[in-house]
Amino acid sequence: MTIYAPQATGADGLPRVLGELREVTEPAIRETVSRLHLGLERVESYHRGWTNVDGEPSGRPGGKAVRPALAMLSSRAVEGPDEYGIASAVAVELVHDFSLLHDDLMDGDTRRRHRPTAWVAYGAGAAIISGDALLALAIDRVLESGSAHTLEGLRFMNRRVGELIEGQALDLEFETRRDVTLDDCRRMAAGKTASLLECASALGAILSGAPDDQVQLLRGYGQELGMAFQLVDDSIGIWGDSTVTGKPVLGDLRSRKKTLPITAALESGNGGLDALRSVMFGDGPEPPEDLLEAAANELSAAGFHKWVLDEARSHLSRAEHHVETLRAPDPVKADLVELAHFVTFRQL
Amino acid sequence: MTIYAPQATGADGLPRVLGELREVTEPAIRETVSRLHLGLERVESYHRGWTNVDGEPSGRPGGKAVRPALAMLSSRAVEGPDEYGIASAVAVELVHDFSLLHDDLMDGDTRRRHRPTAWVAYGAGAAIISGDALLALAIDRVLESGSAHTLEGLRFMNRRVGELIEGQALDLEFETRRDVTLDDCRRMAAGKTASLLECASALGAILSGAPDDQVQLLRGYGQELGMAFQLVDDSIGIWGDSTVTGKPVLGDLRSRKKTLPITAALESGNGGLDALRSVMFGDGPEPPEDLLEAAANELSAAGFHKWVLDEARSHLSRAEHHVETLRAPDPVKADLVELAHFVTFRQL
Repeated sequence: MTIYAPQATGADGLPRVLGELREVTEPAIRETVSRLHLGLERVESYHRGWTNVDGEPSGRPGGKAVRPALAMLSSRAVEGPDEYGIASAVAVELVHDFSLLHDDLMDGDTRRRHRPTAWVAYGAGAAIISGDALLALAIDRVLESGSAHTLEGLRFMNRRVGELIEGQALDLEFETRRDVTLDDCRRMAAGKTASLLECASALGAILSGAPDDQVQLLRGYGQELGMAFQLVDDSIGIWGDSTVTGKPVLGDLRSRKKTLPITAALESGNGGLDALRSVMFGDGPEPPEDLLEAAANELSAAGFHKWVLDEARSHLSRAEHHVETLRAPDPVKADLVELAHFVTFRQL
Repeated sequence: MTIYAPQATGADGLPRVLGELREVTEPAIRETVSRLHLGLERVESYHRGWTNVDGEPSGRPGGKAVRPALAMLSSRAVEGPDEYGIASAVAVELVHDFSLLHDDLMDGDTRRRHRPTAWVAYGAGAAIISGDALLALAIDRVLESGSAHTLEGLRFMNRRVGELIEGQALDLEFETRRDVTLDDCRRMAAGKTASLLECASALGAILSGAPDDQVQLLRGYGQELGMAFQLVDDSIGIWGDSTVTGKPVLGDLRSRKKTLPITAALESGNGGLDALRSVMFGDGPEPPEDLLEAAANELSAAGFHKWVLDEARSHLSRAEHHVETLRAPDPVKADLVELAHFVTFRQL
């Protein structure tokens, strides 16, 4: 078991490694986005927080760029050239933006990071076509990496994109299904959340021509990290403090979202979950407010708050184990472990 | 100038070459689509006309499969193996479906081939995510072609996809712009329509490792074909006979669409186009019905009906010229010429 000692954080409260790597990846992402046709660039610049709705610079920094950082570390872990890490960072981040632009629209989400989502700001058509353009641009960026392993990298990335899309398709299906099992839900999370983190964690290594065992360890790290992240996210969807998260209290119960702890509880056959069942299987557009807190309390009493955090910790510990086994420079290993902890627990 | 003698047509009234090549490409497309997750496969099978909304076989044949036929001919033109033509046929057709699924939604089109469009039948989310899945699947299909020129082929296809997306983005922008020039409009059509026909016409040759001059001729053929097709399509949008086309009479005028003949006319400074200007720049959700016919008559009187068909013929003749210059087996050349005529004039 790794003894984890958190790194110093920067002025923005983020781990040092994120700030350092963002210095490298951010200009590359900006350069690539600037190749888009004007209207498409505007939507993506807004979505990334670089600009306001009117296209003026926002003065705000972009996001935390966790995926780009993982991509940089994935080539450094196998002592590959930074240029493959950069190509991977840009590609993975653009795929991430593609999926957010489309998902926000499909899910009807109107706010992201305290601002209207892109489809609200620019219209559904603009969000769809900009997402499409970002996916094509991401593929372009891998195609021009210059690596002798470009084809392998592209095959890997495109499969992960396919899984990401399948995960979102499953999530959409869940909305109208009553029989979602914990297994279904794990499969959805593995696709929708873990696949792209897996991609970020291994693409740079694949482009660098790393041996298969190293690539497998990095992939495993990313998958475990992704599941840990999703479990914590699901915990916050029920028990999160809205003043910290900026998300509504009891949000996933209110929207009857079939998340990991909720499907686990429903599947458990546990007797004391009447309010939860009323919430999840009730009629009407939204469950009655007074039931939401009761359902959350039932879930805690039946041990599912503990369960979801235990599961997250166990995935995190598997992610750490993959890093320990890796033949990588020690500082890179330390950064990977740091990021795993940050990604998993920053929301709590 | 080629002396063009139309081929015999099959029982379905389609040129022989389309029917023959569809026998080869259709099973390959079905196999690839069957790899999709269940809900995604359902949407695509419906969109292609294979099934009804409930997923039951429709008993109807699929579409004409013009792009797959061009893709098959593109490898045969350079005496490459059919398997590269097939990989290209599947990939290009899936890209086509991706773009139709998204475009119908963005454009708010509710009918396609006499049935509700996919987003009407299954919801906007299903249309978005299925389109996304098809784009990823198309790339997968090229990645597994087995050609030593896969990377080259993918680079070529992905650029054409980027142009297609840019064309659609321009088209969306045109809706709120009053200053669309003929050049803007040509650029939009080159992206939205011609790029994918260019891709279909050359991808198989690129995967076959054809010399650059042959690839350039096939690309030129596809581009010219695409422009000819769009010009005729724009003619039908104004002067088409709805009993033949199944589209509403004067449709492009009613929806104030900035098409090639309309932007050409507006840009001409021609004095006798008052009704056209009232239609195109009027307020209100739709122009008054009585002005539509007047605008169409003005356009004819000012020579723009003749102009659009002359332009189409001149692009078609350039497409034929590219075929003549090609070092390809004569029967393949004859098929390419046949398809160019069919694609251009089948709608008239």
